Amino acid sequence: MNTKKRIIIVGASGTMGQFLANVLEKENHDIVRVSKTSGELQVDTTSTKSIQEMFEKVGEFDALISTAGPTFVGPWKNLNDQTFRTGVEGKMMGQINLVLIGQHYIKPNGSFTLITGALTHEPQLHFANASAANGAVEGFVRAAAIELGNGIRINAVSPTVIENSPQYFPYFPGEIPTTMKQLEFGFKKSLFGTVTGQIIEP
Amino acid sequence: MNTKKRIIIVGASGTMGQFLANVLEKENHDIVRVSKTSGELQVDTTSTKSIQEMFEKVGEFDALISTAGPTFVGPWKNLNDQTFRTGVEGKMMGQINLVLIGQHYIKPNGSFTLITGALTHEPQLHFANASAANGAVEGFVRAAAIELGNGIRINAVSPTVIENSPQYFPYFPGEIPTTMKQLEFGFKKSLFGTVTGQIIEP
Ligand SMILES: NC(=O)c1ccc[n+]([C@@H]2O[C@H](COP(=O)([O-])OP(=O)(O)OC[C@H]3O[C@@H](n4cnc5c(N)ncnc54)[C@H](OP(=O)(O)O)[C@@H]3O)[C@@H](O)[C@H]2O)c1
Ligand SMILES: NC(=O)c1ccc[n+]([C@@H]2O[C@H](COP(=O)([O-])OP(=O)(O)OC[C@H]3O[C@@H](n4cnc5c(N)ncnc54)[C@H](OP(=O)(O)O)[C@@H]3O)[C@@H](O)[C@H]2O)c1
Repeated sequence: MNTKKRIIIVGASGTMGQFLANVLEKENHDIVRVSKTSGELQVDTTSTKSIQEMFEKVGEFDALISTAGPTFVGPWKNLNDQTFRTGVEGKMMGQINLVLIGQHYIKPNGSFTLITGALTHEPQLHFANASAANGAVEGFVRAAAIELGNGIRINAVSPTVIENSPQYFPYFPGEIPTTMKQLEFGFKKSLFGTVTGQIIEP
Repeated sequence: MNTKKRIIIVGASGTMGQFLANVLEKENHDIVRVSKTSGELQVDTTSTKSIQEMFEKVGEFDALISTAGPTFVGPWKNLNDQTFRTGVEGKMMGQINLVLIGQHYIKPNGSFTLITGALTHEPQLHFANASAANGAVEGFVRAAAIELGNGIRINAVSPTVIENSPQYFPYFPGEIPTTMKQLEFGFKKSLFGTVTGQIIEP
């Protein structure tokens, strides 16, 4: 079923990215690990030039997963046009540009899977920037799904705080963490399924 | 019930803004008409400096309505980082900055009502930029509602294509247009009701 795929993971050094890279590699997929400062390749998703260079270096691929989505986390009183830009450039335009540019490099019938999070609909104090960036990415995913050609699919995975990030638990009172298995299945649904334009809540 | 309010309408020269300004003025509210190039006052919402100057000039107010939300509308092949910025700076950050700055000027128990649209969840060809900007504003509205102090409320109104904009009908096949009465009631629910953090689909 899941024939071998060449999968770029942007954010591969992070909590989610490392986990997903290891799982998919064990299942014999060819993983290209990309991060900002480490991995086989580096990219700064806040730069369209850097994104383009990454795709030129990678060559052919079947799927791109992004788990790279920096946002401003902090007290509301520190949220202003400037601090807001962390999420606008990072989690929002960074991921949107991976698709707008990557569509010209990905193989037909390939897939993009972006990261958002429960904050889109379940806000928490200190995370308004992530709520906005997530909402933007989710709106984009639904719209891109009806525009992308060549059978290319696009989805987002939207977990709540994940099991392996206990440092965030205090910010998410009463939220039952998403397990790493659920996260893995969420990404696999997008990677190996047929869905497009979906926000997968794993 | 609806005691007289001083209401800023940003976008007052537009299709929605003009309609709402006239309705609310007839009901004896004090309307400050603001647009980019006309009205009593001008503001360019893509500039934080311009927004700040507008609030300094207006002085005390009870509510702000925004119906100003420029986005890039056009073929997917023309969508790139640069064209995407129309919606990022206009409909998204323009409206978000009206709130981040305006919260320091609005009266206690005041309200912000922003504009989004059905494209957040019902994408249409040529409108991916608006889908993303809407999603961002809606995520922000839900998050801001739990952060804003002094009883200040915030909501968004999300109509589909409106009755008075027949030029857009061809882009929204099968969508029953939102009537101007529905639009008016959507804004009134936010202005005169007690709801906050809501996306009102009128
Ligand atoms: N952790 C959670 O509980 C949770 C829950 C829901 C949603 N999310 C979202 O999921 C995403 C990933 O979370 P995580 O906990 O795995 O994050 P993480 O551990 O901080 O990892 C972030 C990854 O993104 C890369 N990165 C950061 N900025 C980049 C840029 N400008 N260009 C390219 N790569 C960049 C980092 O590379 P370097 O290591 O080289 O800097 C790293 O590989 C975030 O957007 C977060 O909001 C997280
Ligand atoms: N019309 C529809 O069917 C429909 C349906 C759903 C959602 N929407 C959304 O609703 C919003 C308003 O729609 P509309 O049809 O009323 O628009 P419109 O007729 O084009 O009016 C836009 C208004 O916004 C002002 N404006 C534009 N850019 C600005 C800026 N940078 N700073 C300050 N003001 C600015 C304009 O001022 P000037 O006249 O001086 O330029 C004008 O007053 C848009 O965001 C649209 O996406 C529209």
